[in-house]
Amino acid sequence: MATEIERKFLLRGDGWRGLADGGTAIRQFYLAVREGLTLRVRLREGRPAMITVKTGAGSARGEYEYPIPPADAAELEAARIGLVVEKRRHLVPLGGLTVEIDVFGGALAPLVVAEIELPSPDHPLVLPDWIGTEVTADRRYANAALALKGRPDAREAD
Amino acid sequence: MATEIERKFLLRGDGWRGLADGGTAIRQFYLAVREGLTLRVRLREGRPAMITVKTGAGSARGEYEYPIPPADAAELEAARIGLVVEKRRHLVPLGGLTVEIDVFGGALAPLVVAEIELPSPDHPLVLPDWIGTEVTADRRYANAALALKGRPDAREAD
Repeated sequence: MATEIERKFLLRGDGWRGLADGGTAIRQFYLAVREGLTLRVRLREGRPAMITVKTGAGSARGEYEYPIPPADAAELEAARIGLVVEKRRHLVPLGGLTVEIDVFGGALAPLVVAEIELPSPDHPLVLPDWIGTEVTADRRYANAALALKGRPDAREAD
Repeated sequence: MATEIERKFLLRGDGWRGLADGGTAIRQFYLAVREGLTLRVRLREGRPAMITVKTGAGSARGEYEYPIPPADAAELEAARIGLVVEKRRHLVPLGGLTVEIDVFGGALAPLVVAEIELPSPDHPLVLPDWIGTEVTADRRYANAALALKGRPDAREAD
């Protein structure tokens, strides 16, 4: 089990693009989403297909990830709930940490979200000016919520 | 993916016991249960811990099973829904096929259920006299339903 401590932000402009790698394509979908648990299948360019159970909630949660055959991933897509989430993930180094910037495609475009994984909850973080509003606690920006309910700024009030 | 074709029966008496092996202990629980999908974690004596996604419904369904570290299984138990199902599975040979007889413990005792996996849906089956009522289509006897709602004969009408 790995406990993730992540902070999530919207972006302010394109200042990050010159600092980022070319990115990798990610395609993921959800098989189950309930309070305290999500089950995700992810296909990521250059990596094995993965099935992931996430437990708990908030900024610290459990994550259990296992490789699966790509053919299983393709078949399981038919049992998904919600959208298939397609995004390109770019990496930007930030003072010993890494910012993951997800540029969403399909029905979720033009959403762009940055995530920073921290070694401890109180790890200091100096944010560059292209990092905008923090949405760590805004559950509408969880990828499972995006898959089930779409882009927050395109939803009816909820 | 493996497609399972299974028929399920209640038992009539103990005539099977002299034909069965000593059995293996199984402990399993569910992380997600919805129409068309269940996510199960199973610990079985002498085998690796497994996480299993079952898709579809009825007598033919998809099953995707992956080994996981036992420590993950222990941690995931806290995120379960419903009971932990504890049972002892005995095997009885039957004309080239195998009858799996599950003797449930804990809150599900004294339930006993037999399952026979068939090579094709129309495979002929000559049933011994200790096989009782068929419950293949009775979803109350699905292990996920047992975990969530308990023993059918102990439930309120549902």
